Amino acid sequence: MRELSVSTDSKIVLLVLDGLGGLPMDPFGRTELEATNTPNLDALAARSDLGLSRPVAAGVSPGSGPGHLALFGYDPLEYEVGRGVLSALGVGFELGENDLAARINLATKDESGKISDRRAGRIASSEAAKLVDLLNENLKLDGAEVFITPEKEHRAVAVFRAEGLSDALSDSDPQRTGLESLPVEPTDPGAEKSAELANSFIEEADRILADHHPANTVLLRGFGMHPALPKFDEIYKLRAAAIASYPMYKGLARLAGMEVLEEGEGIAGEFETLKGDWGSYDFFFVHVKPPDAAGEDGDFERKSAVIEEVDALIPDLLDLGPAAIAVTGDHATPAKMRSHSWHGVPFLLSSEYTLPTAEVFGERACAGGSLGVFPAEEIMGLLMGHALKLNRYGA
Amino acid sequence: MRELSVSTDSKIVLLVLDGLGGLPMDPFGRTELEATNTPNLDALAARSDLGLSRPVAAGVSPGSGPGHLALFGYDPLEYEVGRGVLSALGVGFELGENDLAARINLATKDESGKISDRRAGRIASSEAAKLVDLLNENLKLDGAEVFITPEKEHRAVAVFRAEGLSDALSDSDPQRTGLESLPVEPTDPGAEKSAELANSFIEEADRILADHHPANTVLLRGFGMHPALPKFDEIYKLRAAAIASYPMYKGLARLAGMEVLEEGEGIAGEFETLKGDWGSYDFFFVHVKPPDAAGEDGDFERKSAVIEEVDALIPDLLDLGPAAIAVTGDHATPAKMRSHSWHGVPFLLSSEYTLPTAEVFGERACAGGSLGVFPAEEIMGLLMGHALKLNRYGA
Repeated sequence: MRELSVSTDSKIVLLVLDGLGGLPMDPFGRTELEATNTPNLDALAARSDLGLSRPVAAGVSPGSGPGHLALFGYDPLEYEVGRGVLSALGVGFELGENDLAARINLATKDESGKISDRRAGRIASSEAAKLVDLLNENLKLDGAEVFITPEKEHRAVAVFRAEGLSDALSDSDPQRTGLESLPVEPTDPGAEKSAELANSFIEEADRILADHHPANTVLLRGFGMHPALPKFDEIYKLRAAAIASYPMYKGLARLAGMEVLEEGEGIAGEFETLKGDWGSYDFFFVHVKPPDAAGEDGDFERKSAVIEEVDALIPDLLDLGPAAIAVTGDHATPAKMRSHSWHGVPFLLSSEYTLPTAEVFGERACAGGSLGVFPAEEIMGLLMGHALKLNRYGA
Repeated sequence: MRELSVSTDSKIVLLVLDGLGGLPMDPFGRTELEATNTPNLDALAARSDLGLSRPVAAGVSPGSGPGHLALFGYDPLEYEVGRGVLSALGVGFELGENDLAARINLATKDESGKISDRRAGRIASSEAAKLVDLLNENLKLDGAEVFITPEKEHRAVAVFRAEGLSDALSDSDPQRTGLESLPVEPTDPGAEKSAELANSFIEEADRILADHHPANTVLLRGFGMHPALPKFDEIYKLRAAAIASYPMYKGLARLAGMEVLEEGEGIAGEFETLKGDWGSYDFFFVHVKPPDAAGEDGDFERKSAVIEEVDALIPDLLDLGPAAIAVTGDHATPAKMRSHSWHGVPFLLSSEYTLPTAEVFGERACAGGSLGVFPAEEIMGLLMGHALKLNRYGA
């Protein structure tokens, strides 16, 4: 890809409706997308290549990390994004290449030193934020900077910054109450320094939080570092921009080397941003979160309504005149399952050079499409080809 | 898979109609499956995911070994099952991890020591069995036990049992008459001891059989050892059982770590066994041999009749309430070709979470299915996903 890609003026849009794929509530019914009135997406499908994209592997439901890595063209089994990294991205922390991230639980330790509550009574977010401030002010480590950011309730993220860190570390979280927290141990010889830092961190935090029962200790887990992803400008020679409303997706796009744009309010606002910055980039990743959230809630109707809202904005997208547009999801989130799933995700690719097979956009129309069922990792190659940004391979 | 799989109460059935895939006898006709009246499989297809599964590689017709390894989720190009191993499994020999198996031909050697008949005049099975008894009684090797089991006519299987054996051995069979048999030679440095054992075996057999013309010598070929397959309980955390009527398929299932159940008579008897042992396992491989045999005989009508017989038993299977059922074959055996073939095999997966695309079960209905054309190795992942036995991959 790196050898074949060429920089041109043509523009690509990857429009991701998070959790787009669905299932019929009963076997003889229609999916969310099939049941939705989508005149604009249907008209687009009628001049598009269609297929079902598969996120990771047969039967495997992906998290948002691997789901998006595959959409961006990376092998999600080769490039792992640790839970700590996703949490750091989720709180908007701009993770550097040398940073080590971990998830923190504020927790309760009893007088004998055993963990009596792994979530400190699900302490209120406002209380937790005060304790995080306390830690940030008072916790000093020899040989590393540390940044702590609160998430929701008892959860927070720690980022260690120093040269030569490693994420080959075991968790301190014993996973069950009635046990002492575990020392963080290196699982690779190169991780001794990181383990020492993590253990010093816990010791210091214990000292600072001693009088703040129920949140009188911390548990660390999910150590992860910035994955060394080759960047979009290197691989595809694209000036790539991301428009997303949730920090985690902004962070994932940043990992791939995309510039994150200041997005407008709601879905329409994201499309406004696209329009406003159209001249400055040649690749746009637009992330629409609500279909996934509706699917997770088991709300078929709301998922359908959100898809309809996106459909109404499609003409604005077409007016910009992109050379290639893909509309798809990072995975299915069927309302029937109230969770991410492994099912094929409807995929549409519109360009000047397509072989249309149906006049509607839906799972079953896509199943019979000219792209068949294919790995999501191939989407970037397809977009590059359709935008005429790839040289011929071989003579 | 090993990291994502979880043990649950839900049950999976993999129903394999050996050689299920077929072809129309003329291009405008119907395949065996399409021509068969299968109301129960059709009703099941109407609420199933459909696809065509591909056993090994494009254009490649698989033997039973690789065909089943792929169904069980193993890469058949990575895990080879030697012919000696398949023969040992075929005669019901319970091959241990240290056993070295080889195929034997009883053969004829002339006075000059050259092979004059590689099959000893296709000696009768009863005669051959007596000679095998003679060998088992009189043939002793220094440093290894040896077990000989007759197959049909001139064919038998030898199993060598000792520590440190290797199957990196050349055949003694010269493949043509008029040549002397070849010394067995190690093809790896670690196989010297095994080569010596095999050559001693031939020498001893020659001595014992000297007066039993035409079967006065043996040829050895297809050396193989128990492949080190990761077992079903490790990979999938499944208590797996196999129901099959032919020793080779029982043996293949045992290689994968399945428990082989005592099967009832005929196809209906196999389904009775399934019912009887339903509570004790959470995965069942049910192997139905007759479609393949009919296909090999070029008997379109008989293949169709056997499929109809299976169809009539489908309601009994559904009554048991499995969470996920796959119905497929290990390969196609089109009556038109009288042999295994490389063609896609009809595949149906029924569960609570499907995207049905057709109302019949047949090759062409499957070709348009939501699973597309996919490698047979992915079947186990799909079944695990549909039975909700896989955790999410990544956050």
